[in-house]
Amino acid sequence: MYYNNLTMLADYYELTMMQGYFLTNTHERKAVFDLFFRSNPLDNGYSIAAGLEQAIEYIKGLHFTEADISYLRSKGVFKEEFLDYLRNFKFSGDVYAIPEGTVVFPQEPLLRITASVIEAQLLESALLNIINHQSLLATKAVRVVNAAAGDKVLEFGLRRAQGPDAAIYGARAAMIGGCTATSNVEAGRMFDVPIAGTHAHSWVMSFDDELTAFREYAKLYPSVCLLLVDTYNTLKSGMPNALKVFKELKDSGVKIGTYGVRLDSGDLAYLSKRVREMLDEAGFHDAIISASGDLDENLITNLKGEDAKITLWGVGTKLITSDKCPAFGGIYKLAAEIIEDGKVVPKIKISENPAKITNPGIKTVFRLYDKATGKVKADLISLYDEIIDANQDLTIFDPINTWKKMTLKGGEFWVKNLLVPVFLNGECVYKSPSVMEIAAFCKEDQETLWEENRRLFKPNILPVDLSEKLYNLKREMIYEIRGE
Amino acid sequence: MYYNNLTMLADYYELTMMQGYFLTNTHERKAVFDLFFRSNPLDNGYSIAAGLEQAIEYIKGLHFTEADISYLRSKGVFKEEFLDYLRNFKFSGDVYAIPEGTVVFPQEPLLRITASVIEAQLLESALLNIINHQSLLATKAVRVVNAAAGDKVLEFGLRRAQGPDAAIYGARAAMIGGCTATSNVEAGRMFDVPIAGTHAHSWVMSFDDELTAFREYAKLYPSVCLLLVDTYNTLKSGMPNALKVFKELKDSGVKIGTYGVRLDSGDLAYLSKRVREMLDEAGFHDAIISASGDLDENLITNLKGEDAKITLWGVGTKLITSDKCPAFGGIYKLAAEIIEDGKVVPKIKISENPAKITNPGIKTVFRLYDKATGKVKADLISLYDEIIDANQDLTIFDPINTWKKMTLKGGEFWVKNLLVPVFLNGECVYKSPSVMEIAAFCKEDQETLWEENRRLFKPNILPVDLSEKLYNLKREMIYEIRGE
Repeated sequence: MYYNNLTMLADYYELTMMQGYFLTNTHERKAVFDLFFRSNPLDNGYSIAAGLEQAIEYIKGLHFTEADISYLRSKGVFKEEFLDYLRNFKFSGDVYAIPEGTVVFPQEPLLRITASVIEAQLLESALLNIINHQSLLATKAVRVVNAAAGDKVLEFGLRRAQGPDAAIYGARAAMIGGCTATSNVEAGRMFDVPIAGTHAHSWVMSFDDELTAFREYAKLYPSVCLLLVDTYNTLKSGMPNALKVFKELKDSGVKIGTYGVRLDSGDLAYLSKRVREMLDEAGFHDAIISASGDLDENLITNLKGEDAKITLWGVGTKLITSDKCPAFGGIYKLAAEIIEDGKVVPKIKISENPAKITNPGIKTVFRLYDKATGKVKADLISLYDEIIDANQDLTIFDPINTWKKMTLKGGEFWVKNLLVPVFLNGECVYKSPSVMEIAAFCKEDQETLWEENRRLFKPNILPVDLSEKLYNLKREMIYEIRGE
Repeated sequence: MYYNNLTMLADYYELTMMQGYFLTNTHERKAVFDLFFRSNPLDNGYSIAAGLEQAIEYIKGLHFTEADISYLRSKGVFKEEFLDYLRNFKFSGDVYAIPEGTVVFPQEPLLRITASVIEAQLLESALLNIINHQSLLATKAVRVVNAAAGDKVLEFGLRRAQGPDAAIYGARAAMIGGCTATSNVEAGRMFDVPIAGTHAHSWVMSFDDELTAFREYAKLYPSVCLLLVDTYNTLKSGMPNALKVFKELKDSGVKIGTYGVRLDSGDLAYLSKRVREMLDEAGFHDAIISASGDLDENLITNLKGEDAKITLWGVGTKLITSDKCPAFGGIYKLAAEIIEDGKVVPKIKISENPAKITNPGIKTVFRLYDKATGKVKADLISLYDEIIDANQDLTIFDPINTWKKMTLKGGEFWVKNLLVPVFLNGECVYKSPSVMEIAAFCKEDQETLWEENRRLFKPNILPVDLSEKLYNLKREMIYEIRGE
């Protein structure tokens, strides 16, 4: 919160490696890095790409100030010629990315960076930080919103977020994932998204009695008047006082907007049913019941299963921190080098664990849609210059269990290349949509999934296959390295 | 990262409540709020207070710009007289706090804010955000450092942190909790703490072969040369190449500093033992073995139990996100109002759950130390103006199980008041120590605990009692509210 740009938001080894490339005069070699992830958080059936706008701002802002250079000099490991190089550092490469709000799957490059290795290396830590955080939060929000099954979800996590940025950019991502509003005023202002809130227990406690507190609040905010009824005793004190105030409000003839109560403690299923009865008996059929307090997609699912009478969910801690899975495992791996005459030398990182072997070469992601239903059939990771002819039959296969095959009939599917150009030769060629536009796109994009992909628990997983060309390249490289 | 100050980092309801206080002309009433938490994260035996320096910067920076006011006006719910009031808003109250790095326990006020209710209300969200985050991370770091049992722990979490601030302030808190260095260059610069790192797989992959990559790295960085040996095959490729390079390095006569290897995958217990043997057989007894990769206090404890030959631990994701418990449950509750003639009116928030009933009144925290051992006997939350005479016998009792009593003999204990003044009448009267000073204090402060309080699993919990005066006040208020 007190730094001007994020250039120094880098792991120290990025800088020592950059100097290494520079001093061995290998820094100008063109490298291709993929930013991708290996598994969906929380066993969701998919993830949501988010954070690109901030990644773009980061790249645009890249430069080393004299203060940065002095600090690095003080470490005693950097040579003056390298520090001189940093003085004029700017990003001059290409970035392709999958737009924010898109449904994405493991192994797919969310960003593909082509630049001199010294430039591409610097970007690693900050890009991962930004994309990991927002993709995690957008995916978590999707789960909570899916659990709410059409009810509105408000993002209430500011006070429990992991620092100011986590609150602000977390709120941004939560809106992308489908929240209706955030309580975070700064996020509302920065991203032009709706803000919402009720009042705290302290409002009630700072008046002589609860009734006066409610009455004053209702007088001030008749257009959105949600009274927090659990400060003393929800059913014996909060509700009778709220009913009195709602009656006064109606009798006063003031134009009333959204009104109702908020439950923040106790058993939400039981209390919401009793509260609904009390509201209905008093004739307040249009009063809404909102709830907050340690909610997440699991508890919301349970409460809805118990027919809790809650239709507005304020979700704080467990959304904003992505409780149970607070990290998105994005990684940034060298995929290729481009040498003389543009020749591409694919690179691979192998591992005993097949899922950890990277996909070599310059790649893109094709999404294959069924024409009849508009739903996604599969994704295909291929080399970037492959062409898919949707008029021809296309047989795809699982890259690990290769006997798992699927043939899409020519003319019955259509293809979309998910990666779009964002920077070309260091110039930004992409304009980020507004957050609400991204949120609308995210909602649409999820509608191209099948219902079983969107299930919260044990979802069906769409196939993400490799093109035959990429599959063969990968296999040959593994055999070569293992000397077989 | 793109906001100038944190004034607007507030839940929307803080602003609507502030307007409510203003328009009902109750905003000048002096209120006392406590910031405290209800349970230690991760079932640790204690927590570490952290984030006060940033909380102070936040309070100092509080002001509404014209842009802030325009934004608020655009919501259509704020009256011009209130917006005018915000134009001249500044914090003019008192803040007392427990210094950073201090061992703290549930229910203890980490901060106590006395100010007009309209000022104190605004602070809630941002103070909680800052203190919750850093206290969580410092506490998590303490656990990891305790598990490492004297080995050094490096904070490597930047790429998986929940946004830039989470990385930067998380690194700060991790240093307070006892990490030796961070990989985060911006954190290193901002807080003047050591930075560290090795190299990535991409360094190895971007040379024609692993041996060349190691050789070039060793030539460049002989003073801290930790080679990452798992890019292709740790035992068959990485280690033979590393041994060759270490031999060349020694033969070259260059002054060598710390050197050794880093393991980032595979079975760390098995590999570290084999690697230790290979290093020892080659005569590199002083080469160190460091490890990274999904480490946390549990895995480190297990690996040490298996006699893994690792002495330097790079801990990333699971530290920086406080995996398994990504939020610190700090809350901000009204404790009292001060009315005419300085009369204190204590306030209480009750609940069916006894642990959720707040402690009323203006309070402080006394820590009671055993003179003979220097260890903590208990903490005592009392009203702020109580005096404890350490020359008299003192009997304290558990506030829930009141039959649990302990008598400290006069002359055999000493007392420390944990809360110190930070702001008086809006002026900051506290100078934050440097992060490394706070870290040293944190280490010392933990040495006043008994070994059984510091155990990672099922620790013994020190008593945190209420003074008899506070206990009686609380009991009377509960009876009164419940009408008994």
